[in-house]
Amino acid sequence: MVLINGESKEQIEVFDRGLQYGDGLFETIAVKSGKPQFLDRHLQRLSADCSRLLIRPPDTKLLENEVVGLANHADLAVIKIIVTRGVGGRGYRQPDVVNPTRIVSLHPFPDYPDTYQQQGIHVRFCSTRLGLNPALAGIKHLNRLEQVLARAEWNDPAIQEGIMLDIDGSVVEGTMTNLFFVKNESLYTASLDKTGVAGITRGIVLEQAILHGIKIFEGRVSQDDLLSADELFVCNSVIGIWPVRQIEHQQFSVGPLTRQFQHWLEHFEDKSVRNEQ
Amino acid sequence: MVLINGESKEQIEVFDRGLQYGDGLFETIAVKSGKPQFLDRHLQRLSADCSRLLIRPPDTKLLENEVVGLANHADLAVIKIIVTRGVGGRGYRQPDVVNPTRIVSLHPFPDYPDTYQQQGIHVRFCSTRLGLNPALAGIKHLNRLEQVLARAEWNDPAIQEGIMLDIDGSVVEGTMTNLFFVKNESLYTASLDKTGVAGITRGIVLEQAILHGIKIFEGRVSQDDLLSADELFVCNSVIGIWPVRQIEHQQFSVGPLTRQFQHWLEHFEDKSVRNEQ
Repeated sequence: MVLINGESKEQIEVFDRGLQYGDGLFETIAVKSGKPQFLDRHLQRLSADCSRLLIRPPDTKLLENEVVGLANHADLAVIKIIVTRGVGGRGYRQPDVVNPTRIVSLHPFPDYPDTYQQQGIHVRFCSTRLGLNPALAGIKHLNRLEQVLARAEWNDPAIQEGIMLDIDGSVVEGTMTNLFFVKNESLYTASLDKTGVAGITRGIVLEQAILHGIKIFEGRVSQDDLLSADELFVCNSVIGIWPVRQIEHQQFSVGPLTRQFQHWLEHFEDKSVRNEQ
Repeated sequence: MVLINGESKEQIEVFDRGLQYGDGLFETIAVKSGKPQFLDRHLQRLSADCSRLLIRPPDTKLLENEVVGLANHADLAVIKIIVTRGVGGRGYRQPDVVNPTRIVSLHPFPDYPDTYQQQGIHVRFCSTRLGLNPALAGIKHLNRLEQVLARAEWNDPAIQEGIMLDIDGSVVEGTMTNLFFVKNESLYTASLDKTGVAGITRGIVLEQAILHGIKIFEGRVSQDDLLSADELFVCNSVIGIWPVRQIEHQQFSVGPLTRQFQHWLEHFEDKSVRNEQ
């Protein structure tokens, strides 16, 4: 089920800038018991990232109604929102008047086995690197060839995620997840000021760490840092938190702080955001 | 006029990966007297770049027929080809079986005044930088947010192009053109092994330089190098070669080598490519 600018259809204009230039962004939202999870946060990020890309943000209330309407049709599902700059313009220059395109689609929830969450996953290092550009860093934009190429590196179903480094060799994130590790009871994650996607679940993990007095190091992460960690986990809005049990040939145990964050995320009630708006 | 997989229509599947992830590439071809210019070169590059992105290249003969068919409708025009990985796949991973999408569209030739070619253009430096990634460098792919943001930096119609630097501060190219400069009768241009688009016209300029015994330096170019040049020009498949007469406040004269390259390009007969195939 797809709504394009509020209309139920599955085709878009070929001259939409989303297709022509990857000129847009997206959100991926979990739906549980018919309720979109952390919807306010997703809509806030979408709006903020539209502003960074100089795209006129869609009306939040309108978008919220469309998401909630679609979510009603499903118990467990995923909703994807795409917003593009709209149709037209000669070349890269945007037209003087342009109406952003709003695409809201409903998808089956992926059938990941429970073991991923309970016992952890196996990951690999990807050879495809992430380029650096502060102007785009953090944004969940539609320029995703790096992730596509990274995800094409392996077919082995025993490996659930690939870790991506940037072109300077720092560890950044998974192809579809953010990455955390724990060392001496402190929480570490890559800073996303030059590349990467600042995920909603990543934000919640960081907030919970602060709330519970866990020390956070957000900065440059090396492969050695990662391999010497006590605990590792990846997260996103659909999977929640998956412990990492193995990177390449190195084993890790699923640690107590990973379990804590899984618990906190599961019982997290999103009260803060509406007040901030 | 648009052909999508050979069919005349103007809408594509919303789940085409070209829209969802910018997962594809494109070509822009000038049509003169109903004839697509340097078509073999464009089709060769498209095919080579598809391979780099692990996209199954479309049948070259089929694509050639579609382009030639559309070009027949026009005296002076532009044809754009987009090839995407196709429809579907859950997330970044491509489906096991996927059929690339082929989009061929005919556009009016932009109404640039003759003065641009004859007397030269004014350009500016963009503050939006180009990220570096060897895996994508040179490819005319659909991940073009950097160019969109750079082109959004100015509205002044007196400025015809913006020069982009990479994140390390090296000069790379224009938002829609490749950039050359002449110093002491040698030809300089940025190497495109880490970023940029390896344009067809850029390739022809380099070939002509070799053919006529002009020394070429392809490497790292600084802003100072550019500003101390004897001659500068930008090029692409639609505009041909435009001399640069002014960067920001600094003036340049339109030099003899720029005129030579314009002449060579105009009278260039593309004999070499079919034999190479």
